[in-house]
Amino acid sequence: MRKIELYDTTLRDGAQSEDVSFSVEDKLRIAEELDGLGIHFIEGGWPGSNPRDVEFFQKAKKLRLKNSSLAAFGSTHHASNKASDDPNIKSLLRSGAPVITIFGKSWDFHVSHALKISRAANLDLISNSVSYLKKRVTKVFFDAEHFFDGYKANPEYALLSLKAAAEGGADLLVLCDTNGGMLPQDIGEIVKSVALNFSVPVGIHAHNDSDCAVANSIMALESGASHVQGTINGLGERCGNANLVSIIPNLKLKLGYDCVSLQNTKKLKVVSRFVTEIANLRHFKRQPYVGDSAFAHKGGAHVNAVLKHSGTYEHIRPELVGNYRRVLVSDLAGKSNVLMKAKEYNLKIESDSPKIKNIVRELKELENQGFQYEGAEASFELLMKKQLRLHKKFFTLIGARVIIEKRKEGEEPISEATIMVEVGGKTEHTAATGNGPVNALDNALRKALEKFYPQLKDVKLLDYKVRVLTAGKGTSAKVRVLIESGDEEHKWGTVGVSENIIEASWQALVDSIEYKLLKG
Amino acid sequence: MRKIELYDTTLRDGAQSEDVSFSVEDKLRIAEELDGLGIHFIEGGWPGSNPRDVEFFQKAKKLRLKNSSLAAFGSTHHASNKASDDPNIKSLLRSGAPVITIFGKSWDFHVSHALKISRAANLDLISNSVSYLKKRVTKVFFDAEHFFDGYKANPEYALLSLKAAAEGGADLLVLCDTNGGMLPQDIGEIVKSVALNFSVPVGIHAHNDSDCAVANSIMALESGASHVQGTINGLGERCGNANLVSIIPNLKLKLGYDCVSLQNTKKLKVVSRFVTEIANLRHFKRQPYVGDSAFAHKGGAHVNAVLKHSGTYEHIRPELVGNYRRVLVSDLAGKSNVLMKAKEYNLKIESDSPKIKNIVRELKELENQGFQYEGAEASFELLMKKQLRLHKKFFTLIGARVIIEKRKEGEEPISEATIMVEVGGKTEHTAATGNGPVNALDNALRKALEKFYPQLKDVKLLDYKVRVLTAGKGTSAKVRVLIESGDEEHKWGTVGVSENIIEASWQALVDSIEYKLLKG
Repeated sequence: MRKIELYDTTLRDGAQSEDVSFSVEDKLRIAEELDGLGIHFIEGGWPGSNPRDVEFFQKAKKLRLKNSSLAAFGSTHHASNKASDDPNIKSLLRSGAPVITIFGKSWDFHVSHALKISRAANLDLISNSVSYLKKRVTKVFFDAEHFFDGYKANPEYALLSLKAAAEGGADLLVLCDTNGGMLPQDIGEIVKSVALNFSVPVGIHAHNDSDCAVANSIMALESGASHVQGTINGLGERCGNANLVSIIPNLKLKLGYDCVSLQNTKKLKVVSRFVTEIANLRHFKRQPYVGDSAFAHKGGAHVNAVLKHSGTYEHIRPELVGNYRRVLVSDLAGKSNVLMKAKEYNLKIESDSPKIKNIVRELKELENQGFQYEGAEASFELLMKKQLRLHKKFFTLIGARVIIEKRKEGEEPISEATIMVEVGGKTEHTAATGNGPVNALDNALRKALEKFYPQLKDVKLLDYKVRVLTAGKGTSAKVRVLIESGDEEHKWGTVGVSENIIEASWQALVDSIEYKLLKG
Repeated sequence: MRKIELYDTTLRDGAQSEDVSFSVEDKLRIAEELDGLGIHFIEGGWPGSNPRDVEFFQKAKKLRLKNSSLAAFGSTHHASNKASDDPNIKSLLRSGAPVITIFGKSWDFHVSHALKISRAANLDLISNSVSYLKKRVTKVFFDAEHFFDGYKANPEYALLSLKAAAEGGADLLVLCDTNGGMLPQDIGEIVKSVALNFSVPVGIHAHNDSDCAVANSIMALESGASHVQGTINGLGERCGNANLVSIIPNLKLKLGYDCVSLQNTKKLKVVSRFVTEIANLRHFKRQPYVGDSAFAHKGGAHVNAVLKHSGTYEHIRPELVGNYRRVLVSDLAGKSNVLMKAKEYNLKIESDSPKIKNIVRELKELENQGFQYEGAEASFELLMKKQLRLHKKFFTLIGARVIIEKRKEGEEPISEATIMVEVGGKTEHTAATGNGPVNALDNALRKALEKFYPQLKDVKLLDYKVRVLTAGKGTSAKVRVLIESGDEEHKWGTVGVSENIIEASWQALVDSIEYKLLKG
């Protein structure tokens, strides 16, 4: 089993993603997760470019990493400085990172147009910078920027830039597809010719602009490279970097390379979601291996087949990457899926019962209105229980009012909710404030009901999502609210849909409470 | 220039995506867009599987397609029927589509475990079905389900299944990576061996479970296939299908194949966004070629270089796919980007002015609070104008109140807003209702202001988005509201952030109105 080195640059290249901005604290937490996953090198930042990255390396000294070495990223020294006087080189050394990765130019066009120095001078910059650093840290990696474009334009010069780094003592020559436009066959051929020419190990750093970053990385590794750089979830500038969350299982589970342990591939989904949450993005449902849809089956025929033999429609066992199979509730699914869900919920229903038809009909009707049960299974379970007469009413709403009042520009408004409910002949009338109208309503409803149902005190609202459904209708658009609730043991999702966000939230809140009370 | 046939299955395989459900009307509109893009074949659905697809083919007869032929999808006839009696085959013919694509089994494991018939019987099913259909329609394509898995398990049998289809008269043999788990090198080798064995053209149908669908498709085309199947944006079950929006420019702009015209590649971004909107999804920012981030530059060094020579950090010219370059407002960008934006907005500011520092500082502060200007440039322009004292106040809020009242379970609540504003010493106090609290407030504010500023009558709210920012805080989480407004000439985006959705919406509404009034 050939060993492949994994180098993660989520904290540096990944932080260049549009919409992503990591705090130092975020970066430290991500570094710990990467270490837990068994990544060999973690590129923590570019200490010469911003104070946040300087602070990261300072604080990172306290991390107790078991598997990973930290790498600091920067450029070769500036043409007008000596390496020893160069502020960028100094900040790299001050970072205290045992590995330093520096990038240099390997495309002659960039040397003359961006650096505006001679080709020979650029080669000196590279070898000087590498050899100066090599005497002072454990490992120096050389990132050959625009290597593939450079090689296509002038292969001799591109190889000379690698030679300069190798002569300076570089431990690794990383071939970068900086613009991300390469296709797999080019990558394969070029990496092969480099690997034949150098005894220093070769790495690949791919971007996804032609939608081939994962394939390009695999192709490079199959063609002689032994080190791969990428980011969690493919975060990165423009179209992102090569996605390590896809590369790792491709290498380990399909090609049998030695990179992380089989125990660690099981962490991939968790790590992927963790980085998404920290970056405050949505997890991409169709993300290969770890997306929520990656092992979700919608069509009836597929569902039947997968339940018989998982290999029929699944390329790997989902557990291997910490994912799981899902059977989707959907208008394409029909009767057999409803029966399967009934079994899952422990509801007794004969397979020829007319109630199934009613459930399917109601489901379709509600889906047409914008309801969606894929993130709100508790609401679907309630829907089924209502049809099966297994539902009971725990309270009656007599009236509710929410008032939002703003008395001055620039001041947050006050939100107040009043509510009147009836439980078993007794009326409760109460009021509460909140950070916003939905929060106020939630507070008032709980206050009114906890008197009768003390078990509601255990329920917490964990997440609240709002989705505008009908684009192009301005503020009168329909919205769907998804609420995730939990008690000490379980989590459940509920849904509401209305043109009025308060009404949609109300529906989801009531479902959440009823679900809890039905569970007892 | 070798010609490649493009076959789109957005309306069939794409509709299997989780969260996607197309109406017949949606499908007809998408078909017209695909025709405009120059796609050769549009797979409209599986008429044997659901009434919606039957209706689609009925209504599609009225479409005036210029470039595309419609294809209907279905399976080989059932083992217990003759082809002429098979309901699936009948519904395919009833669809009236000139092209029929039928799938059959080429993996012996599926023949024995799913169909539960002999291997020879399966070959008969394939050739019978193809030859029966071939006499009745223009073209019959054979989709060899699980071809690559089948070939790896039993290459002889997999090839026999293709032979059966070829003998039946199939016009095309489509090799399907149904489970989506293949890697490019396998695809290349297997397609080569098939193309050598058959004179019938070969196609590729890839899924993205190993994150290589685009590369696998390209590899197949480079290895002898001449027909590629995929979907817009890679929609599809599990991790989706091969993304035609990436494949087309890779083929046309990079490999020089003849597939769509250069005029049509320019429509890619529009078509991609159109399908996203119809599917009611978010457009993926990092999507190769057409994503909003695909040519967005954040880092200062990149920005400078790209402005000098676009080839330095861009793999193609963005206009070629209907996209454009963007320079991002962001905390990593700093001074040079603020100056560039000032120029874009026609604001005079010296490059050494201390006001720039103030703008950068305020921007950072607001971004920390959750503001984001990447979809709300009008709010950013207002922020700059405020710092540059180019902003003027058009009205003062004296007070606003929104009341949402629900008097009965199952009834939509009533939303009413009252507002008092002052303009040039005059006070206006008015009220309005709406479909929800934000709509009511919007209506009341416009009603109050249109008296003083009649030009506001031209302004329409085009889109309204809500994003919950802080996960895990239930209904008291912070939300960001993005509003898109437009008049007859322009569109602009504004933003608001608060724990109170009404307040966040208020901020974005006010920015939108101020932006319009400042433009005059």
